[in-house]
Amino acid sequence: MNIYYFIFLPVIIAILYSVYIIFWLKKQHGGDEKMKEISSAIRLGAKAYLNRQYKTVAVVALIISIALYFAFGWLSVLGFLSGAFASALAGYIGMNIAVRSNNKTTEAAKKGLASALSLAFKAGSVTGFLVVALALLAVSLFYFLTGDIKVLISLSFGASLISVFARLGGGIYTKAADVGTDLVGKVESGIPEDDPRNPGVIADLVGDNVGDCAGMAADLFETYAVTLTAAILLGFLTIGITGIYFPLALAGVAILASVIGSFFVKLGKKQNIMNALYKGLVASLIISAVLFYPITKFYFPETYLPFYFSALIGLAVMVLMVLITDYYTAKKFRPVQSIAKASTSGHGTNIIMGLAVGMESTFLPIILISAEVLLSFWLAGLYGIAVSAMAMLSAAGMIVAIDSFGPITDNAGGIAEMTKQPEEVREITDSLDAVGNTTKAVTKGYAIASAGLATLVLFVVYTEELTAFVKNIEFKLQDPYVIVGLFLGAAIPFIFASIAMKAVGKTAGSVVKEVRRQFREIKGIMEGTAKPDYGVAVDIVTKASLKEMILPALIPIVAVLAVGLLLGAKALGGFLIGSLISGIFLAISMTSGGAAWDNAKKYIEAGNLGGKGSDTHKAAVTGDTVGDPYKDTAGPAINPLIEVMNIVALLIVKFLK
Amino acid sequence: MNIYYFIFLPVIIAILYSVYIIFWLKKQHGGDEKMKEISSAIRLGAKAYLNRQYKTVAVVALIISIALYFAFGWLSVLGFLSGAFASALAGYIGMNIAVRSNNKTTEAAKKGLASALSLAFKAGSVTGFLVVALALLAVSLFYFLTGDIKVLISLSFGASLISVFARLGGGIYTKAADVGTDLVGKVESGIPEDDPRNPGVIADLVGDNVGDCAGMAADLFETYAVTLTAAILLGFLTIGITGIYFPLALAGVAILASVIGSFFVKLGKKQNIMNALYKGLVASLIISAVLFYPITKFYFPETYLPFYFSALIGLAVMVLMVLITDYYTAKKFRPVQSIAKASTSGHGTNIIMGLAVGMESTFLPIILISAEVLLSFWLAGLYGIAVSAMAMLSAAGMIVAIDSFGPITDNAGGIAEMTKQPEEVREITDSLDAVGNTTKAVTKGYAIASAGLATLVLFVVYTEELTAFVKNIEFKLQDPYVIVGLFLGAAIPFIFASIAMKAVGKTAGSVVKEVRRQFREIKGIMEGTAKPDYGVAVDIVTKASLKEMILPALIPIVAVLAVGLLLGAKALGGFLIGSLISGIFLAISMTSGGAAWDNAKKYIEAGNLGGKGSDTHKAAVTGDTVGDPYKDTAGPAINPLIEVMNIVALLIVKFLK
Repeated sequence: MNIYYFIFLPVIIAILYSVYIIFWLKKQHGGDEKMKEISSAIRLGAKAYLNRQYKTVAVVALIISIALYFAFGWLSVLGFLSGAFASALAGYIGMNIAVRSNNKTTEAAKKGLASALSLAFKAGSVTGFLVVALALLAVSLFYFLTGDIKVLISLSFGASLISVFARLGGGIYTKAADVGTDLVGKVESGIPEDDPRNPGVIADLVGDNVGDCAGMAADLFETYAVTLTAAILLGFLTIGITGIYFPLALAGVAILASVIGSFFVKLGKKQNIMNALYKGLVASLIISAVLFYPITKFYFPETYLPFYFSALIGLAVMVLMVLITDYYTAKKFRPVQSIAKASTSGHGTNIIMGLAVGMESTFLPIILISAEVLLSFWLAGLYGIAVSAMAMLSAAGMIVAIDSFGPITDNAGGIAEMTKQPEEVREITDSLDAVGNTTKAVTKGYAIASAGLATLVLFVVYTEELTAFVKNIEFKLQDPYVIVGLFLGAAIPFIFASIAMKAVGKTAGSVVKEVRRQFREIKGIMEGTAKPDYGVAVDIVTKASLKEMILPALIPIVAVLAVGLLLGAKALGGFLIGSLISGIFLAISMTSGGAAWDNAKKYIEAGNLGGKGSDTHKAAVTGDTVGDPYKDTAGPAINPLIEVMNIVALLIVKFLK
Repeated sequence: MNIYYFIFLPVIIAILYSVYIIFWLKKQHGGDEKMKEISSAIRLGAKAYLNRQYKTVAVVALIISIALYFAFGWLSVLGFLSGAFASALAGYIGMNIAVRSNNKTTEAAKKGLASALSLAFKAGSVTGFLVVALALLAVSLFYFLTGDIKVLISLSFGASLISVFARLGGGIYTKAADVGTDLVGKVESGIPEDDPRNPGVIADLVGDNVGDCAGMAADLFETYAVTLTAAILLGFLTIGITGIYFPLALAGVAILASVIGSFFVKLGKKQNIMNALYKGLVASLIISAVLFYPITKFYFPETYLPFYFSALIGLAVMVLMVLITDYYTAKKFRPVQSIAKASTSGHGTNIIMGLAVGMESTFLPIILISAEVLLSFWLAGLYGIAVSAMAMLSAAGMIVAIDSFGPITDNAGGIAEMTKQPEEVREITDSLDAVGNTTKAVTKGYAIASAGLATLVLFVVYTEELTAFVKNIEFKLQDPYVIVGLFLGAAIPFIFASIAMKAVGKTAGSVVKEVRRQFREIKGIMEGTAKPDYGVAVDIVTKASLKEMILPALIPIVAVLAVGLLLGAKALGGFLIGSLISGIFLAISMTSGGAAWDNAKKYIEAGNLGGKGSDTHKAAVTGDTVGDPYKDTAGPAINPLIEVMNIVALLIVKFLK
């Protein structure tokens, strides 16, 4: 059977290549003792956080496992735990590599931009390759071993659970540490960012790893597993066994394309870092597009064209989504500059313009997603939408790689700052860090669009599966149950985002208290004669963010059970779509708006409109502070929120009326 | 026929009583020359604005009339123009009375709180009574004269057109004048609010009238006409002729209840102004509940209970909606205080908390509306929802009266300030003004919930009407056309709100320029030796806000035509519901969030957390500035947006495929 080659060959190549990179990284120089010491503090903090997060999730997973056992039997439990374990493993290894590579990137920067970029990207690509390889491996192995496609829903549920906790916990951690540390450090005490005298500085550096590396990894692992599962289920329903193999094969060759594409990440003559990364992305997309052709022809010898075009549409939407997000969040375009300009008349006008830009930034992505849905549906029916969604995820490996590049370079910059490296080294780490900010924004837009598509395909599967259990089920838009479902579903992302925003505020408050306490009680911190106790600060954020994460993470599960069992299958259908609609808009407006605020501040800091320290800059800092929980906590956590709700709904189909 | 008594008797009573109040107001003392002079400047500005607004709308109306003539014939044109004319008339007369009563309220304040309250409320109630009386008169007269219920859609369209322009134009005007005047006056030059030296001060006072009096009047006129039309159409489809008479009769007796209720507005021993107003509201609701009973029994002698309970549910939801909005926006509860507390750590945290409160504030209203839909549907089917929606509007007369009370007392306070009235007079006008702010917030929550319900009933009518033109039309949630429709529809309120927010920013910018110019060029303004040129500032806001209003006002009409004609009836169905869902959430979060920011500032100004002038207060002012366009421009303009889209869709039903 060719299908094994299509899947397992790329998976093995990706894993072997990751292992090779890990060994290669081990041999790289980690800099002087000071640098190693800081990196090790970050590593300890990040590991401690992730361990505790997984412990918390393990308790929830245990309870869910028991419920799954009684409802669906041990196979479902096994699927659930495998999905959770594979996702956690990808996040764990990936983050471990990331936190071991920050000081090495700083050290490499001494040799120049090219070697620092190469090292940081290679380290980031371990997470990227592991996410896609382990996700495909988990799904395909489970299917081939059990022959049961329904159990994949449980597997996806496991991945979703990790994702919703990782996104929330990591998101609260990273922004609470960031905002809390800055409030006392930058604003109250007037010491610069990443200053070693600030007791919260290690927590802040840890935050980037647990948020953007582990969080994003879990997020895309979930979207990948969920989309694959949905495509397989829908494929089997509409086409049969070929409908199962085709998405698996697409996923396989796309992983191969990502690995090859990663070799194209190289600085050009202009030394443009962003272009170097984009070159890798474009290469992997082109290779995917080429490889998809024989694959499609192999599975659909007669009717390959509509499926192939559906896949191409997915690739095209992926590219356009990146371009649109870039337009709304990069310094050189109108939206960010309009926020910067609005900052000249004060804090209030900065916020008004940022909110307006955030809301506006939803429009083009929605047109794009709508076009994707309609075009791929015209071409190849509902299954065409699934193919298109799967093709969109071809780039997932590269995207996660580019995203994980962000925290590594951010940390490298922090280490350079804290160890007082020479100007030219800091310039290199700063320029890498700046690009890391852009890639983080761009990948979020992509992640949301993918999650939206995945949810949509899941929903179609939900409606199909229901027909076996509920007779004559219809989701008519004018049905009061559907309408009420839509209303209630749309409310979930709002209340969820509200809680997440408040959680950041609360947790940041506890950081502020601790940093103030250390400044007060440990004499000599400010003079540099005494060392702050970084560990206590790390500990406090860890505990607080894990505590704050639990309630909102349970919302989607509890809400789906409540609506499904109390109001029935019809209302639940409306509920799922309602949450998708409001979720996608909130998520895009928050992540793009937040990134635009961030870059408006950076635009001013680059010397425009009065530059650093001016009143305009102060107004822009306000926007950035608001944008932080928007773009890094509430916004991205909406992806797993809407996905996990659809997964749970699919799981409980047989109990619905 | 009894139906004539039920309708025309209350209408005549309401109009006669309004005329009586107008004459009574004429006889009231207008204060000294200075007060009269300022009031007359406000009056001229407000009239000039409204005249120009109507002229602009007239051009659009003419174009639409021509289109209507060719598509549906002259009766449709007549209906359209009647609806527009009646709405404009109610707004025009109401605002005229309001701007003639501001100085009289200041003068009455010299005699004490009771007489000032009585005068301001009476003046406001003219708008309230005229809105409901003219709306019911227009709809019922048109129906009885033509016997054609379909033509009521055109009539509603006319009312919608006025509403969308009035809400947008008035909303941009009032906030641009407010923000622009404050930015130069309070922030740059350090002179107090309503200082006669500020060239923008009259424009600011005009703004309250064109926004909250004329704008809200048009908004509720539309919701009233639209709900009545939808109930009539649905009633005829499901029940027959009784289904037409019943909502008309309910509307009639509710007007009577409002007129009687208005006599209950009286200060108690505790001199609590809010309670005085609420007494009137509660009285009119109780009278409505009592009168509904015989009416329901008359029309449904056997099966009156389900219909009566549906009506009671509408009344109950109305009351609960007011209470919930009050909770989220009043100083004494947790949400506002949490924003105030968050202001202690800066501008950014104030905004984060305000956004979180705004998002949270959508939850209970949505639960409430969902419960209303399901309960009234269980009781009396789809028509039950319409009855419940109609009952909710029983209070419309009182609500508009209480809302119009706001700008009158605001202006009275401004006049007292500008003419340097003694402390005790200013205390009275200030306390009235403070209550006016609360009533404005509360009525917005009510207006949105009503608009949501009205839209829902309209949508049901849309799906029913379509069956005559499109065979086997079904709005299945899993249909890609419906999904894409939902996505695109949900995008409209986002892009609309974004444009509205930016429009306020732009228009405020032109006010800032003009005020700065006058300060610079007219020597002696600051010393009080020269008078600023208020007229030029008024003129500039008028022109700018009317210019900015046109594009967003055309969005709903163009979007419905584009989606309906290009993607068809199914996608349009999704589109309507999509806009309803995202619209209702955005509108509630914006109006409640904005009012909460406003009152958090007032809470601090009352001496809490550092009081006026502290850094905490400055952070709260930022929140208030952001809240202004949120709660007074973008948020409330979403009501007519979603209604007019449904009306246009209903109108073009026969051209759809």
